[in-house]
Amino acid sequence: MALIVQKFGGSSVADAESIKRVAKRIVDTRRAGNDVVVAVSAMGDTTDELLDLAHAVAPTPAPRELDMLLSSGERISMALLAMTIHSLGYEARSFTGSQAGMITTADHGSARIVDVTPVRLREALDEGAIVIVAGFQGFNRDTRDITTLGRGGSDTTAVALAAALGADVCEIYSDVDGVFTCDPRVVPLARKLDAISAEEMLELAANGAKVLYIRAVEYARRHNVLIHARSTFTSNEGTYVLGEGMTDPRLAKGEDMTDVIGKEEPVVAGVAIDRSQAKITVVGVPDVPGSASAIFTRVSKAGANIDMIVQNVQSASPGRTDISFTLPKEQARGVAQQLQAEQSELGFEAIVHDDQVGKLSVVGAGMRSHSGVSLTLFDALSRHRINIEMISTSEIRISVVLRDTDLDEAARAVHTAYGLDGGVEATVYAGTGR
Amino acid sequence: MALIVQKFGGSSVADAESIKRVAKRIVDTRRAGNDVVVAVSAMGDTTDELLDLAHAVAPTPAPRELDMLLSSGERISMALLAMTIHSLGYEARSFTGSQAGMITTADHGSARIVDVTPVRLREALDEGAIVIVAGFQGFNRDTRDITTLGRGGSDTTAVALAAALGADVCEIYSDVDGVFTCDPRVVPLARKLDAISAEEMLELAANGAKVLYIRAVEYARRHNVLIHARSTFTSNEGTYVLGEGMTDPRLAKGEDMTDVIGKEEPVVAGVAIDRSQAKITVVGVPDVPGSASAIFTRVSKAGANIDMIVQNVQSASPGRTDISFTLPKEQARGVAQQLQAEQSELGFEAIVHDDQVGKLSVVGAGMRSHSGVSLTLFDALSRHRINIEMISTSEIRISVVLRDTDLDEAARAVHTAYGLDGGVEATVYAGTGR
Repeated sequence: MALIVQKFGGSSVADAESIKRVAKRIVDTRRAGNDVVVAVSAMGDTTDELLDLAHAVAPTPAPRELDMLLSSGERISMALLAMTIHSLGYEARSFTGSQAGMITTADHGSARIVDVTPVRLREALDEGAIVIVAGFQGFNRDTRDITTLGRGGSDTTAVALAAALGADVCEIYSDVDGVFTCDPRVVPLARKLDAISAEEMLELAANGAKVLYIRAVEYARRHNVLIHARSTFTSNEGTYVLGEGMTDPRLAKGEDMTDVIGKEEPVVAGVAIDRSQAKITVVGVPDVPGSASAIFTRVSKAGANIDMIVQNVQSASPGRTDISFTLPKEQARGVAQQLQAEQSELGFEAIVHDDQVGKLSVVGAGMRSHSGVSLTLFDALSRHRINIEMISTSEIRISVVLRDTDLDEAARAVHTAYGLDGGVEATVYAGTGR
Repeated sequence: MALIVQKFGGSSVADAESIKRVAKRIVDTRRAGNDVVVAVSAMGDTTDELLDLAHAVAPTPAPRELDMLLSSGERISMALLAMTIHSLGYEARSFTGSQAGMITTADHGSARIVDVTPVRLREALDEGAIVIVAGFQGFNRDTRDITTLGRGGSDTTAVALAAALGADVCEIYSDVDGVFTCDPRVVPLARKLDAISAEEMLELAANGAKVLYIRAVEYARRHNVLIHARSTFTSNEGTYVLGEGMTDPRLAKGEDMTDVIGKEEPVVAGVAIDRSQAKITVVGVPDVPGSASAIFTRVSKAGANIDMIVQNVQSASPGRTDISFTLPKEQARGVAQQLQAEQSELGFEAIVHDDQVGKLSVVGAGMRSHSGVSLTLFDALSRHRINIEMISTSEIRISVVLRDTDLDEAARAVHTAYGLDGGVEATVYAGTGR
C-alpha cells in the first residue's frame, strides 16, 4: 500500500461541483489501495475576498489578525471536501495547519515551515481515514499563533506533508497537464515533459514557468520528495520532478519505456519566458570603485528583488559606465524614483526606466557537460533578427533580456533550435496553471 | 478597573461598517478604563451560507466536519474586529474557541461547555490587549476536535467567559433596548425593564421572549454572572438580569433610584407570547392505565419536545378520554403521522393536528407569595371573550393556549390588567432581538 499526498488548488475546489469532482478523484485513489493525504487551498477567490474585507476595515491590517482571517479560507474548503468524501461512503477527517502539526516561524504572511509533527494525521491514517489538511497555514510554537505561508503556500504544505509522512509521491494537481518544454500558449509545438530534474524545475520556475512554485520544489529537493505535477481534469500522467538520484517512477513500475531509455538525455529541458520584469538603466555612472555598491545599497533599501545586472564596459561619456538591472515591474517605479532623488549624491547622468522588456531562459542540466549550448541560442535569435539587451547565465541556464514584442517569436525560434518541438500541437487549456 | 465581557451578534457585525461601529464601542469601553473581552458571532448570514454549501456537497454532512466548517464564520468576524480595533490604535487579539480554552463535550452541533481555561486570555489582558473570542465554538479535550454550541451559542460563550474570568458584567448587545414587559410590536405600551431576576428571565425566554437565550441565562444563574442586555445602537442602559442575591447595579453605583426603591416589587414581571407551537389532540383514548404512557413513548421516539399536556376529565365517548399536547410546529406533522400509523395499536379514535394556536404566559416571582394572580388573567381574557384551550402553571408562571388570532388582543388585555402598561408607547425597532 502506497501513501500518496495530493494537492488541490483553489480553482479545483471553486464550487460545490468542483469539490465533488475532486472528492471522487481522491476516493478513486483510496479505492486503488492507497493511503491518501490531501492538502487543499481556499475555494476560488475566497482569499482575495477576505483580503478585500480586511482592507475595508483597516488600511494596514495587523499581520497576526490577517493570518487568523485568511486561514479561515482553507478551513471552509477542507471541511466541505471531507464531508463530500464522507457522503461517498469513505471516512475522511480534516485538520487545520496547527492540528496537522505544521510548525512555522512567526513571520505572519510569509512563515517558513520549521518542523512537521503529523501525529494526528498518522492516527487518522492508521484508523483508515482519508486525511484532509488545510494548505497554506501553520502555527508558531512560541507565540501559539496561526500563521500563513504566503504565495504558493499550499504546494509547500503538500510537499512538507509528503516529506514528514514519507509519502511515495506528492501529486500536485492544477489545470495544466504537467510541465511543458515551454508555455504552450506561446509555443504550440511545446511538449509535456514526462520527467524533469528538480534543479531544472527550479530554474524554470524561477524564470517564469508557472506550473509549480519554487518554494515547494526547493523543499522537495531538500527532503527528497517525488513530485508529480498533473491535471485535475484528466487521468493522464503528468510530469515527475525527480530529486537527486531518483529514477523515473515509470521505470520502477516496469512500464515500457524503450522510447525513453533509447534516447540520450537532452541537453536542454525547456524554455521559460517571463514578462514580469522591468529594466532600469543608470546612465553615466562614475567609473570608480564603490559606484555600483552605492547604487545597489539604495535599491536594496527600497526592498527590490534584483534579478539580472549588467555593467557596460564603456559608456558614451569617458570615465563613466552604464549599469542596467532587472526587477519586478511593480517595484520598478519606486526604485527609479528613489535613485532619481539621490542623483547628485550618486553622481550618475540619467535614469532610464523600461518595462517593455521580456526575459527568455533556456534551462538544461546537460549544459554542465556540453559546451556551445549558448551558441544555438544566439544563432537562433540572430537568424530572426532579434536583439539581445542583457545576458546572464548560471551553471544550467542561459537567460537573455529582449524587447517584449520579440519574446513570443524568440521562444518559438529557440524551442525549435534546441530540438524541443513535438510532433503535434499541444492541447492548450484555458487555465494559467495556477 | 472593571472587567467587562461584551457579546455582539451576527447582525451587529454584518458588514465592514457595522464592524467599525462595534469596534468604536469596544474602544470606548476600554478608554473608560475597563478591561474588555468580546465574544463575537459570525457576520450576518455567514452561518446560513456555510450550511447551504455543506448541503450542496453532502445530503447529511458529517457532524465533525460541519463544526469545522461553521467555526470558520466567527474566525472571520473576530479577526476583522481585532484588526479594526488595531487600526483605531488599540492592541487587540483574537482567539478561537480552542485558543480561549473553551472546553466542551464532544456533541458536534450542540456541545455543552464543561470547563473554561482562559490562560491565553488572561495573558493578553495582563499585557493590556482587548481580547476578542470566537463565539459559538469550543473544542473537546479527548477527541481534540472543534465543536459548536448550537443555537444561542455566542451568548453562552460570553456568559461562560464572564464566569471564568470573574467579569463584573456580561453585556449582551442586540438590536433591542433590553427586556420588555411584553413584545412592543404587539403591546405598544410595553415598558423596558430596568432589572429582572434570572429565574423570571428564564421563564420568559422559555415561553417566547427572544431577547436572550435560555442556555446563556441558565449558565449565568448557575455561575452568578450579571447579564446586561442592551442595544448596539444607543448608549442607554438596558436590562440587568440579576442572579440570586444580586442587587441592581445602579444601586451600587449610587444612582438616584427613589422611583425604583419606593415601589413594591411587582407581582408580575412580564408577559410572553409564543407562536411557535402547534397542538395535537388524541381523541378518544381508552381511559385505562398506560394509555398516556404508550402515546408519549411514541411521541418521544419521534424526537419531539413536548411543552404542555392536558388530559380531559371525560370525552364524548364513554370510557374514553382526550389527550392534548403542544410541541414545536415543525415537529407536529411528523408526530401526528407517527401516531396515526399506530392507531390500531394505541386504540384511540382520531388525531387532530392544529397549528392555529398561540401561547400566552404571565411570569412573576411574586406569584410565589401572592394568591389569586391567575384570577386577573382569567378575568381579563373573559372580559375580552377570549376562549382558553389549555392551561399550565409553574411556580412563577401561568400559561394559556388560545386561538392564534386572539393572541395579540389577549396580550394587550393581560398587560393592562396586571398594571404593566407604561405611560408612553415604547420605541419599536425593526429588529427581532436576534
